[in-house]
Amino acid sequence: MALTGIEQSVLAALDEQGLIQSLRAFLRIPSITGQEIEAQRWLGQRMQEIDLAVDLWTIDVPALQQHPAFPGMEVERSQQEALGLVGTWQGRGEPGKRLIFNGHLDVVPVGDRTQWSHDPWGAELDDEIIYGRGACDMKGGLMAALYAIKAIKDAGVSLPGSLAIQSVIGEEDGGLGTFATLLRGHTGDAAIVCEPTNLKLVPAHAGALTFLVHVTGKSAHACARLEGVSAIEKYVAIHRALLQLEHERNSNVTHPLLGKLKLPYPLSIGRVQAGNWSSSVPDELIFEGRIGVAMGERCQVVREQFEQTLNNLCQADDWLKDHPLEIVWTGGQFESGEIPLDHPLVQCSGKCLQDLTGQFPAIEGLTAGTDLRQLVNFSNIPALLLGPGDVRVAHMPDESVRVSDVLQAARAYILIAMRYLQQ
Amino acid sequence: MALTGIEQSVLAALDEQGLIQSLRAFLRIPSITGQEIEAQRWLGQRMQEIDLAVDLWTIDVPALQQHPAFPGMEVERSQQEALGLVGTWQGRGEPGKRLIFNGHLDVVPVGDRTQWSHDPWGAELDDEIIYGRGACDMKGGLMAALYAIKAIKDAGVSLPGSLAIQSVIGEEDGGLGTFATLLRGHTGDAAIVCEPTNLKLVPAHAGALTFLVHVTGKSAHACARLEGVSAIEKYVAIHRALLQLEHERNSNVTHPLLGKLKLPYPLSIGRVQAGNWSSSVPDELIFEGRIGVAMGERCQVVREQFEQTLNNLCQADDWLKDHPLEIVWTGGQFESGEIPLDHPLVQCSGKCLQDLTGQFPAIEGLTAGTDLRQLVNFSNIPALLLGPGDVRVAHMPDESVRVSDVLQAARAYILIAMRYLQQ
Repeated sequence: MALTGIEQSVLAALDEQGLIQSLRAFLRIPSITGQEIEAQRWLGQRMQEIDLAVDLWTIDVPALQQHPAFPGMEVERSQQEALGLVGTWQGRGEPGKRLIFNGHLDVVPVGDRTQWSHDPWGAELDDEIIYGRGACDMKGGLMAALYAIKAIKDAGVSLPGSLAIQSVIGEEDGGLGTFATLLRGHTGDAAIVCEPTNLKLVPAHAGALTFLVHVTGKSAHACARLEGVSAIEKYVAIHRALLQLEHERNSNVTHPLLGKLKLPYPLSIGRVQAGNWSSSVPDELIFEGRIGVAMGERCQVVREQFEQTLNNLCQADDWLKDHPLEIVWTGGQFESGEIPLDHPLVQCSGKCLQDLTGQFPAIEGLTAGTDLRQLVNFSNIPALLLGPGDVRVAHMPDESVRVSDVLQAARAYILIAMRYLQQ
Repeated sequence: MALTGIEQSVLAALDEQGLIQSLRAFLRIPSITGQEIEAQRWLGQRMQEIDLAVDLWTIDVPALQQHPAFPGMEVERSQQEALGLVGTWQGRGEPGKRLIFNGHLDVVPVGDRTQWSHDPWGAELDDEIIYGRGACDMKGGLMAALYAIKAIKDAGVSLPGSLAIQSVIGEEDGGLGTFATLLRGHTGDAAIVCEPTNLKLVPAHAGALTFLVHVTGKSAHACARLEGVSAIEKYVAIHRALLQLEHERNSNVTHPLLGKLKLPYPLSIGRVQAGNWSSSVPDELIFEGRIGVAMGERCQVVREQFEQTLNNLCQADDWLKDHPLEIVWTGGQFESGEIPLDHPLVQCSGKCLQDLTGQFPAIEGLTAGTDLRQLVNFSNIPALLLGPGDVRVAHMPDESVRVSDVLQAARAYILIAMRYLQQ
């Protein structure tokens, strides 16, 4: 199937320059997780400018936290700091399919500023690449979706059903934004989550949990270190045990997408801190890390396996037996999520991209948790990850997205929206 | 040989109550390394009160640092923050042997205050034990020496030669106080260094060097950890290599005193810090530690061996080969120091204690560096470590010293001073 005449006219109506300008303006508004108000209000105004029905509301975080399915949260939030935002276009006003574009506007912190060669909030355009925190993860995808809807409206196309953009906060630390959006009744028949997939189709992702562990040792002067118990020494043994656990959890993964990856369920230690003086045996160590949750696996099972691994190690150690590790499960709780490879949403989206590029895109699995699992698992809305940018530059210094990828994503969203609503 | 009548009368002249009161007052003046002015001035006044010839001077630290034998320094110091202090009693004014009591009044920081059950600066007396930072390391020994000289003077004993108390700063971070004191010409024929030895005789100690190492990794999101290089992962390998180095350096130690110890030359990692987020592969790790210097070993040899060990590891590692470790030698440079077991100072001191307790004390080696090595190696002054308190409670929460040990040390110093000057 080639592009129809109407499709071609809508693609031609895409305001490419406006999209890139708006994306750059969007990137200049810092929206680190927990500090998303300004960006959320700004985007709500952009939605109003193109006559979407805008729902901008205050999320009652404390109430949300009471819900048994609350996905977790890492940053401190006071109630007024959490806003929900959905913009909806009702098509020609006839009932029909409801397609959601879901994207988070919260971004991770800048990190070590000295490692950036571009201003993280400058949205600098250099050789057709836009640099900035959130460029690929995922303001690029979110803005592409907004301009896709704008193009459809601008072209005057008449469609049944509706298109909605869910701009969500708090994705990076668990997903409370999408959770609140779904609880408010913003559901649909299918969803594109505009995460950076390099315009590949990602219908399945693993999950993740984060942990913090206290290791207790016994202080002594370094000159008599055998009289102390080094918490660092204990950590080295723990590290080995956790690598072994990771190895076991990644053996014989049979999932059709995740099973193809070299390490589908990574266990990674991100932070270690111990001691304060070169000549003291450190009596405390804290480490934080992240463990992948397998496809279909319950988070509780992962927690128990992790705790059992450390408990076994403690039982075999004369010191740790009496000074057990303290394990805290911090931050978000990301289950896995997926829809079948042959789901119509996957096939329709792939066909749209094929008609744009000449090639059916690769279908891959992702090792990181996303809001997809909330749409699929909590609200039973089939969802697909598809967006511009390379996830490997997400969270990194000099995060970036190609202008051409953002434009191509907008074109893909246009076709998916038109075809999905008319199917 | 039993105690002579004169010796008994001098021991009887020891102002036990005054000694304990003064020690407690001394402990109430915080004197953390680098902040010793108030304590040094206070002690100078106490010396003047008993009519010692007091030399209180400002140490020109920047000039000192230019000296090739400068023992190192860890804290920041401005010039006016460094004071030297020596109090001398000239006996009856006749030439003779010059005996030094050397003690540092700088103390290590309090550390985790919550682990103290006593006020670190309260000098609380509980069940005949005095608690406080510096109680055993080593204000107890220093004050015992002052009161030993006071007792000799108070008893009106006539002695040839001289007795001097060197109250030094900056021992904990290298030994600049003793170095400055020796350079100023305060030398002698023998020295007792009043470190806590539990009143055992310690004529030999190993040395120590401290290091800081930067490990460089490569950042990545935890969900794609194989695309990064974890600095923590590299550290685990480094840790093993350093344990192996420690093992090799402690095999076949033949020194008559150090060779008896289970681990004469410990290598200990005191601080590790890496990463800042559970879900990022950490691209940097810093660790600090301390390596023992063997008896008679040059510091430079230890540095080279340590660096070679890490260099070998780097060469065998694909990543570290191109991202070498950065090694910084921080803080003090403690060589080993010793005098022979059969040195007259050792034998005389042992005999004095035997006459007090009925038993010749144990002669041991110490795994930690002290100012002894500067007296012996730099100024050729035979020196012995001998003082009240248990080194294992030094640098710890609830550091303490027994009243009875402080008094016994003062008695021992009295006898050693009288007999050494009259030998």
